[in-house]
Amino acid sequence: MAKTAGILVIGNEILSGKVVDTNSPHLCQELYALGVDVRRIAVVPDDIDIIAQDVAMFSRLFDHVFTTGGVGPTHDDVTIEAVARGMQRRVVVNAELEAILNERWGDRPDAARTKMASVPEGAALLMEPDLPIPVLQVKNVYIFPGIPQLFRRKFESIKERFRDLPYHGRQVYVTVRESDFSHLLDQLVEEYPDLQLGSYPEVGNPEYRVKLTLESKDEAYLAQAFDRLLNLLPTDYVCRVE
Amino acid sequence: MAKTAGILVIGNEILSGKVVDTNSPHLCQELYALGVDVRRIAVVPDDIDIIAQDVAMFSRLFDHVFTTGGVGPTHDDVTIEAVARGMQRRVVVNAELEAILNERWGDRPDAARTKMASVPEGAALLMEPDLPIPVLQVKNVYIFPGIPQLFRRKFESIKERFRDLPYHGRQVYVTVRESDFSHLLDQLVEEYPDLQLGSYPEVGNPEYRVKLTLESKDEAYLAQAFDRLLNLLPTDYVCRVE
Repeated sequence: MAKTAGILVIGNEILSGKVVDTNSPHLCQELYALGVDVRRIAVVPDDIDIIAQDVAMFSRLFDHVFTTGGVGPTHDDVTIEAVARGMQRRVVVNAELEAILNERWGDRPDAARTKMASVPEGAALLMEPDLPIPVLQVKNVYIFPGIPQLFRRKFESIKERFRDLPYHGRQVYVTVRESDFSHLLDQLVEEYPDLQLGSYPEVGNPEYRVKLTLESKDEAYLAQAFDRLLNLLPTDYVCRVE
Repeated sequence: MAKTAGILVIGNEILSGKVVDTNSPHLCQELYALGVDVRRIAVVPDDIDIIAQDVAMFSRLFDHVFTTGGVGPTHDDVTIEAVARGMQRRVVVNAELEAILNERWGDRPDAARTKMASVPEGAALLMEPDLPIPVLQVKNVYIFPGIPQLFRRKFESIKERFRDLPYHGRQVYVTVRESDFSHLLDQLVEEYPDLQLGSYPEVGNPEYRVKLTLESKDEAYLAQAFDRLLNLLPTDYVCRVE
C-alpha cells in the first residue's frame, strides 16, 4: 500500500479567485513522483475552526499532511493557531525559533517576531542546512508558507523523507470516442482490479481523442495489464503508446 | 449575508498531478464577480463513497454546490452515482435526456448512451438554448463535466441565476514588510470587524512588497475602512492605491 497524503490550502484569496493556487498542483506532481498517493486537497478560508477541523481529520486519515498558507505576522495568518487547536496543543513561543528570528529579523517589531516564533507545543523544527527558517512539523502535519517561491524551496529541502516505492505508468492514445470503447475498459478493470486506469478525453486535439493512463507500483502487473489492453482494443483505435 | 458556494473537483488525475485543475480557479473568479462567497473547494478521487459524503455535506452547508469531473461513459466516471447516493436518490434513466442523446449520439454503443442518460432521480435538466446537452441539477447541486471547454460553456449558460449583490473592493500597495505594519492591520480589523482584509506579500516585486485588499458588499463601509487604513499607515509606506 502506498503512503497517503492530504493537502490543506489555506487562504481567502484562493476562494475569491484573486490568487490561483499553484502550490497544490506542484505538490501533487512532486508527491506522485515520490510514490506518495495524494488522497484529498481542501481549500479553506482563514478561519481557525474550519482549518482545525480539517487538520484533525487529515492527520487521522492520511500518513502525511501538508498545509500551505496562513503563516505570517498578520491578522489573517491563523494556521499556527488552527493546527495547534486541531492537534490539541497549546500555542507556545519556541525559544530556538525565536533566537533564529531575533538574528534574522532583529529590526522588526517585537509583536511580529513573537507571532512568527509561536508554534503548536511540541512542534519539531526541521532545520535543513539550506533553509534560513525551518519547516514546522506537528506529528504528521507539515506547515508550509503560501508564497510559492518559499513553499517550493522548503518542500524541496525536506522531500526525500517522503520517498516511497515509485509508481510505474504507461499511456495509450486512442483516436475514437470514449463511448466507443468504454465497455473494453470495464472489462480490463474487472480483470485487473488493482490497476489504476484513467480515461481522459481531449477536445480539439488533432492527434487523438482519448488518453488512457495505466498505473501501478507493481511493474509486472502493469506490463500484463498494458498488453491485455492493447489486445482488447481494435488495432486501428490506437495511434500511439508510451 | 452573501450566498455561499462549495466546489467539488472530482478526479484521480488532479490528485496525481497529471492534470492541473483550471475549473475551480475559473469558477472562483466567476462566482466572486457574481457576488457569491466560495467557502470551500475539495479535490477528491473517483471514489463513490468519498464523493457522496462530500456532496451531502456541501449541500447541507452551502447555498450552491458545483461538481466538476467524473461524468462520462467510462468506469472512472462515478459522479452521477455518487451525487445520487449523497442526496439519497436512486439512479434512473431520464427519458428526456435519453431522447436528446439518441438524437445526438445515435451511432454510439447502447451501454454508453444509457450511462450518459442516467441521473439521480428527480434531477432537473437545465436546458439553455445554447447547450446541446443540459446541465443536471439535484436540489442545490449542479453537475458539470471536467473538460474545461465544456465546463466553461455550461457554466456561462446558467450563471445569471447565481447573481447576488456585488462585492466592492479597494487595493493598497505597500513598500515595507508585512511585519512592519501588521499591528496597524490588527487595529483596522478591530475597528471594522465586517471588513474582509487580505494581506499578500510578494517576493521579488520591484514596485511593492505587500498588496492589501479590502472588500465588502457595503460600499460606504468599505470607503470608511479604506480611508481609515490610509490614515493608519505612514504615508511613505504606500506607493499606490486602486
